[in-house]
Amino acid sequence: MCELLAMSANTPTDLCFSFTGLARRGGAVGQHRDGWGIAFYEGRGVRVFHDPDASANSPIAEVVQTHPIKSLAAICHIRQANVGSVGLENTHPFIRELWGRYWSFAHNGQLPDFRARPGIYQPVGETDSEQLFCDLLNRIRSEHTPDVTDAELLKTLVEASAGYAREQVFNLLLSNGDWIFTFCSTKLVCITRRAPFGPARLKDADVTVDFQAVTTPSDVVSVIATEPLTSDEQWETYQPGEWRLWRHGVVAASGVEVIPIRDHPTGSTPAR
Amino acid sequence: MCELLAMSANTPTDLCFSFTGLARRGGAVGQHRDGWGIAFYEGRGVRVFHDPDASANSPIAEVVQTHPIKSLAAICHIRQANVGSVGLENTHPFIRELWGRYWSFAHNGQLPDFRARPGIYQPVGETDSEQLFCDLLNRIRSEHTPDVTDAELLKTLVEASAGYAREQVFNLLLSNGDWIFTFCSTKLVCITRRAPFGPARLKDADVTVDFQAVTTPSDVVSVIATEPLTSDEQWETYQPGEWRLWRHGVVAASGVEVIPIRDHPTGSTPAR
Repeated sequence: MCELLAMSANTPTDLCFSFTGLARRGGAVGQHRDGWGIAFYEGRGVRVFHDPDASANSPIAEVVQTHPIKSLAAICHIRQANVGSVGLENTHPFIRELWGRYWSFAHNGQLPDFRARPGIYQPVGETDSEQLFCDLLNRIRSEHTPDVTDAELLKTLVEASAGYAREQVFNLLLSNGDWIFTFCSTKLVCITRRAPFGPARLKDADVTVDFQAVTTPSDVVSVIATEPLTSDEQWETYQPGEWRLWRHGVVAASGVEVIPIRDHPTGSTPAR
Repeated sequence: MCELLAMSANTPTDLCFSFTGLARRGGAVGQHRDGWGIAFYEGRGVRVFHDPDASANSPIAEVVQTHPIKSLAAICHIRQANVGSVGLENTHPFIRELWGRYWSFAHNGQLPDFRARPGIYQPVGETDSEQLFCDLLNRIRSEHTPDVTDAELLKTLVEASAGYAREQVFNLLLSNGDWIFTFCSTKLVCITRRAPFGPARLKDADVTVDFQAVTTPSDVVSVIATEPLTSDEQWETYQPGEWRLWRHGVVAASGVEVIPIRDHPTGSTPAR
């Protein structure tokens, strides 16, 4: 299976610390060696890195860890392949333009036989995840127009996500650069850091950061992930069926849908 | 204005040598300091790097120069902004999915008041280039279905490009990963390297490569650019109105359209 990571902030913030921890799980301390990707929004633009190699050994991942790219919204994925071969076209996050904005999608779960409803958006690769993304965008386009309100759009995102999660495991990160929509089927945790900031230590690497030294008192930065990335902070756990819409570091809307309780997939299905 | 670079090859080939030369023109020996971008196709996937910083000083550009990313088709752009501010959303190449493939577009020219015909594809940023790309894709979708033949599609690409070039300067690189379509309005050159391979020296950096040492006798690799990148090879110059479709290192189709002869823009219009 895969691991997810997202960041929402009220001031442009880099993801070097969290990504350093996550990248270690891509072939060093974890088994997610089948590629990784990350999307950083900067204004209306999005800077995307995709790599089918293990993040723990990737020179491109090293640049992302050491070169601070500052963003208000970023989503990231490290992959352990199950549906779809190891290859660039199957590497999350997937990106599409909708109504003049770039939408990005990263998913953890398995709906191997899922096929997107017919529509404008078509998958390029072989994953169920990209089928789900195209299905969701085709549904949004068929149900709404560009002047849709946030509330109407959110209703569709929640209904669609709960529908997918009723079929199988569906943990989601979705962003259009303005907000990040997150949905928990089996496993998602989060933390919001704000003043007074303290130090934090990564679980997966011998790295500590003093957030006090790299922030201002008004900064609010939240991190959402499959598993806690630090060992000395209190992470909050989503309930199954819980969704949260993040904007500028805080939860702008949230709720809980009724979905079946499932085990979080941990096995290593061989890459196909 | 901007500079373009593309590579078409019959075997996965990196672009480190050519990109090292081009990147120098992004703020070191040239004035194209307003961002750069590159798209490498690998299978059906595409690996894209976008950076609004000058390529000559970019740590990400350094990775692209030193870490061989191998591809059969790649397109690249370094920017001197005229229409649209300096920012990630205005950085070429622009990417969209059409019929289950990623299409990429890099453009050199100026049609400042151009607006895309209404359709599915909408610009995210402010450039005339992205308007042109969306216009072209909207036209392809309105005139064709996914089972369009290469010949029918090519006819549309040529007609559309000549139409844009009749309005203003329009030098184009367009790829869907299978082929690269190139159109010359004012300036485009190319070179095809095949056995017996020899050495080559960059014009813009003190770098020499011995292609003999890094190729096999069956390799065919073509490079298309705004200006020759090497000082000791014979580059071929496109005529105004000339187009070539490259596939696997060679020209698969070509022709010349009648368009007005214009000066190649060289001035440095201040970034807006």
